[in-house]
Parts: sequence; structure tokens; C-alpha cells
Amino acid sequence: MKCQLWFSEYHTKNFALSLRVKDVLFTGKSKYQEIQILDTYDFGKVLILDNTFQTTERDEFIYHELISHPALFTHPNPKKVLVIGGGDGGTVREVVKHESVERVDFVELDEMVLELCKKYMPSLSCEMDNEKVNIIIGDGIKYVAECDEKYDVIIVDCPDPVGPAVGLFEKEFYKNVFKCLNDDGIMTQQTESPLYNLDLIKKIYTYLKDAGFSIVKPYVCSIPTYPSGFWCFTLASKKYDPLDVDENKIKEKLKNIPTKYYDEEVHKGVFLSSPKFLKDELKK
Amino acid sequence: MKCQLWFSEYHTKNFALSLRVKDVLFTGKSKYQEIQILDTYDFGKVLILDNTFQTTERDEFIYHELISHPALFTHPNPKKVLVIGGGDGGTVREVVKHESVERVDFVELDEMVLELCKKYMPSLSCEMDNEKVNIIIGDGIKYVAECDEKYDVIIVDCPDPVGPAVGLFEKEFYKNVFKCLNDDGIMTQQTESPLYNLDLIKKIYTYLKDAGFSIVKPYVCSIPTYPSGFWCFTLASKKYDPLDVDENKIKEKLKNIPTKYYDEEVHKGVFLSSPKFLKDELKK
Repeated sequence: MKCQLWFSEYHTKNFALSLRVKDVLFTGKSKYQEIQILDTYDFGKVLILDNTFQTTERDEFIYHELISHPALFTHPNPKKVLVIGGGDGGTVREVVKHESVERVDFVELDEMVLELCKKYMPSLSCEMDNEKVNIIIGDGIKYVAECDEKYDVIIVDCPDPVGPAVGLFEKEFYKNVFKCLNDDGIMTQQTESPLYNLDLIKKIYTYLKDAGFSIVKPYVCSIPTYPSGFWCFTLASKKYDPLDVDENKIKEKLKNIPTKYYDEEVHKGVFLSSPKFLKDELKK
Repeated sequence: MKCQLWFSEYHTKNFALSLRVKDVLFTGKSKYQEIQILDTYDFGKVLILDNTFQTTERDEFIYHELISHPALFTHPNPKKVLVIGGGDGGTVREVVKHESVERVDFVELDEMVLELCKKYMPSLSCEMDNEKVNIIIGDGIKYVAECDEKYDVIIVDCPDPVGPAVGLFEKEFYKNVFKCLNDDGIMTQQTESPLYNLDLIKKIYTYLKDAGFSIVKPYVCSIPTYPSGFWCFTLASKKYDPLDVDENKIKEKLKNIPTKYYDEEVHKGVFLSSPKFLKDELKK
């Protein structure tokens, strides 16, 4: 029998997900974290930061389409977009699909992640050289604190709330995001698993409401390589309700925006399918 | 360091999910399959058949509410229900929550699963002694082939399509299910993962259409312990469209039906959130 190489993420100390590895493409350490890029049998190339799955070639379309399009299709005319985190480039790739978008400011802390994904995961990083994309190597928390710009949409493509990412889940950060949005601006953030992080989702919901967003809505989907596979995003909006968007307008725009997961039904479906226990928790 | 016991399901030969085990409550073999009941740290008690996760105390509510309620709330007055498979009892537990239901015929092949779940997983098997529930130990495929009864709703709570369950995914079976339903009858089946079993979902869709169902709709959710965690059910209906059901009627009925996952929004949301690539495949 041939020697087998596996990578396991321990979602908790009692729950693990393992992928069989074809090839170790990179393993090393940046200023901020340990980085691995593995080629796996079932999920293609996989980016791992500090032993945690960030993205895989096989399922990344679910995550990247759903962190981007609900906000971008809710806003009638997003021109200026800020993306915080997501060094693999998948979120930026989705954002620039929108013709209305004139500029994407893309703030990523770890330049090494960016460079490695440019080299090893071109299907995600393919828009890094797009002239609309303005790459800023720096801390997203500091960026929104000091920023004088106003954006139409801000997407927070953050890792789990540990280490330098903790501040991306704190009260102050959401106040600054609110400040950096136009009067009809919208933000979206990945907000972990409803099965494992219900308290966190509730906390974020409260912070966003307190920051002044009139509409705050969680939405859910499946991300196979994330803890429990059951995943939540939270959208916060100053003016437009994602459930009020005209389906036909989404359909019309989608003619020029290729997607695999998102369409005008999914736009509504992901919000409506938020489980009762999650909605109950937010009502408390 | 204390000795650690883990159970791993190999979803494929290159993809595994592992849970740390507190206690092995039962391990043995019935006429049909290997059965294990394990007490795990993260997911409570877990039923495993032929090395495959069937249900866990922690996440079973998602599966059992979603295999049952979309059909039962789409039918305006379900009285007679047939449940095929699901020896743990979770589906039957959800079905009898509906006041209109007068009788549940529950056909399970493996009596040993039923007995073990009665003993070890009472939160699932709690309605096995309900007087409305008529337990039939036997083969569901044969049952619908020979049955003269007519049901309002049929739920096929089947395992993966291997071994004796293969016939629960075949043309002949769906024709017989159609035959056993009233003129406004509805059936639901768990139909595996859109990421791993797209061809199978497409095949089932075609078989159900060919059997005569005018409305056939897949719907999706997350089941953490199933392969990829991204799961699909398919609902097939002779008359009523699940998307046409009045939300207020669902809300009214839910006053007497305790749920953790399902509500009138989830009812629509799970259908609408079917990914584009799945809908595209069914249109081909």
C-alpha cells in the first residue's frame, strides 16, 4: 500500500475533518501566521492558515459568491467597494464581475498569502491585476478607523475570530464600517457557524444594530470544509432591504455575471432559510 | 495523556469526518448491517450503520424537521402518512406533531435498529408507542409495490443508495410511490449531496417526473455529519406547489407544532436556496 498523506483540521478538540493530500505545494510562515497550500484529491488546491481551512478550489464558489452578491445585488448601483481580508482573491473576483463597480479597495494584512495565492490558486486570484483593484497591504481594523472614504459596499472576508482577526468582530470595528459607508451603504461579513458560534452571531447582530444599521440579517449556506459545514453570513444595510430587491432586476444583471451558485432565487432563499433557532436567538 | 477513541467516516477514500468518542454504547450486526451506537463529545449519541453516520443527537433536528415538514405543511390536510425507513424514529416524531395526521404507517427493514434506538436514543424514538403509529417490519420497496392503500404524504427516509437501499432510488419504486398516493398526494425523499451526487439527484428528478408527478423540487440544507455537509431533499407533488402555500396558514399551524429549525420562512427558503448549478442540471 502506498504511503498516504492527510491533513486534518480539528474544528474542535473532538471533531475533525481530513482531506487526503496529493502534494504539499507550500508550507511556511509569514509575519502573521503559518501558511500551507496543499493539493488534495477531493477538493483540489486548498489554502490553510494556522491549521484552518480557508478556501478550496472545489467549494470556494459557494463562499465567494455568497459573501459578495447578496450585498452587491441589494445595492442598486455599487460603485466603490471595500474588501477587507480574503487574500486568496476570490471575493474580489466576484466583486469586479459587477459592471457598475469602478473601484475596489482591497485591504489584506498578509502580503505573503496574496503572493502565494497568485502563484498557486490563479482561479481565485485572477483579478488581482485588474486596474479597478487597488491593493492595500495593511490592517483592515486600522484602515476603517482612519479612513475618510465612503463606500457603497464593504465586504469583510475575515478568518475566525482569533489572533489579529479578533478586532474584526468588535463593536468599534462595526462603528467604523458604518462611518465608511454612504447613506445607502451595505456591509457583509462571514460570521461563523450557527451550530458552534450562536453567541458570536448574536453579539455581531447587536453591535451592528447599535452601530446604526437599520436592517441586519443573517443568512446561511453550506461550506463543506468549515466547522460543521453549516455557515452564516451577516448583511447590514442602512437603507435597502435584501428581501425587497426586484427579482427581475437581479435576473437582468445576471445576464452579464456568470455564477454557479447565486441567482435571483438564491438571493432570497439564503435569508429565508435562516433557521428558526437563529432568528429566535436574535429576537431575545 | 488519556487514550483517545475516535470514529471516522470516510465519506470518500480521500475525505473523512471524525468524532471523538466518549463511550461505545453498542456495536454489533443485524441481519442487514453493522450497527454502532456511540456517545460522542461534540454530537451526543450517534447512530452508525455500515460505518456511515445516520443521525446524531446534536444535528438530527435539522434533518428530521426538513424531511417532514415541507411536505406536511404543503398538504392542506394530511391524514394518512407512510414513512419508509428511518428506524431511529426522528421522522415519525415530527409527523405525529401534525394534529391532522390520523395514522402513520412506518415501514422499517431492520427491527434491530428500531429496538436499539428505542433503548439508546429516546429523544428520537419517543413516538414509537404512539397509538397513531403502525410499525411494519419489512422492505419498503416491496411494501409500496404490493400496497393497496392511498396516502396523503409518503416520506422516504432512506440511507445512501448502497446494498438493500438501492431499490429506493429506482424508477419502479417511484412509480409505486405515485400509485400509493392520493390525487393530491406528496412525497419527499432524502437525495444525497449536490456536491457529490448531482447525477443521482438528476436521475431521481427524471424518474419522479416520469412517474407522473407534476411538481418536483429539490431543496437543500446543511447536515454536518453527512458527506460534504451539503444536503438535498426532493419533494414531488401531484397537485400542491410548496411555494404556493400561504405563509399565514403555516404560522397558524406552527403554534401547536414545536420546531427548532423549520418555520414559514424556512419553508420557502430551502427551496429557493437550491443552488443555480443544481437547477441548471435539472433543466438539461
